[in-house]
Amino acid sequence: MTGAIRILGIDPGLRRTGWGVIRVEGTRLSCIAHGVIAPPANAALSDRLLAVMSGLEAVIAEHTPDEAAAEETFMAENAMSALKLGHARAAAMLAPARAGLSVAEYAARLVKKSVVGTGAADKNQIAAMIRVLLPGTGAKADAADALAVAICHAHHRGARKLSGAA
Amino acid sequence: MTGAIRILGIDPGLRRTGWGVIRVEGTRLSCIAHGVIAPPANAALSDRLLAVMSGLEAVIAEHTPDEAAAEETFMAENAMSALKLGHARAAAMLAPARAGLSVAEYAARLVKKSVVGTGAADKNQIAAMIRVLLPGTGAKADAADALAVAICHAHHRGARKLSGAA
Repeated sequence: MTGAIRILGIDPGLRRTGWGVIRVEGTRLSCIAHGVIAPPANAALSDRLLAVMSGLEAVIAEHTPDEAAAEETFMAENAMSALKLGHARAAAMLAPARAGLSVAEYAARLVKKSVVGTGAADKNQIAAMIRVLLPGTGAKADAADALAVAICHAHHRGARKLSGAA
Repeated sequence: MTGAIRILGIDPGLRRTGWGVIRVEGTRLSCIAHGVIAPPANAALSDRLLAVMSGLEAVIAEHTPDEAAAEETFMAENAMSALKLGHARAAAMLAPARAGLSVAEYAARLVKKSVVGTGAADKNQIAAMIRVLLPGTGAKADAADALAVAICHAHHRGARKLSGAA
């Protein structure tokens, strides 16, 4: 790994999709930007999906990440919530895919373990650790989760490349 | 309803997404085109989603539908298959949404009832009825299902407009 790269992390959700862009140079990480896309709750499903995708396309255009990563699904408690999550993830993954970026997927447990050190961490612990790892970001909740996914990818992208899984 | 309109029907699936475009003029229906998009099975999820969306964008560019309709999900048997179906549906709905088309959703039972007369029809019955309703199409399986969704929308779009549900 030579030179700096930018990673877009995504925490997909139909109501709130968190995103975060970090800069990685060797072992040094810094936060470029982060935010949350919240589609209008009463809009048609197709319009909410479009809001997620278009929002991330704007993020990619502005912050020019080199690679992207999204959280793989925790097992949803029922088929209906899994279906909704599938919609949101697809809309979120299509934005980087259309821009020609690879989209790595990481299990939620691995994301938590990469950032907090345990796979059973809750959202507050992740946000607190993000404030330590990326001082001055102030990211909360969904945006912090997205930055955690980006950090997870920063840690594992070398191994993925070596194993040919990228 | 005056003048002819074109309706794009979509039967979303990650392995095979069926599509069909019909022309509706009053009560007269005719088939414009139909087909199946089959993303490479061993590609990354984001690339398969991109194949579904890009394929439908090409269909929309070529056949210029005025409205679109997709099948709402039958209750998947488990959360994992619901998640996959959610991915496929989102990719399929984003193509017409980006083109500025409304995307109506219909329950699978209503689609079957509109075409075959019973909500419990199987794929073979739908394909047979499509050959009767749209003579000369030769559409099978997923493409026939997509044409059935388009026909369902042709039957119900007037009522949807009146009730403000569109």
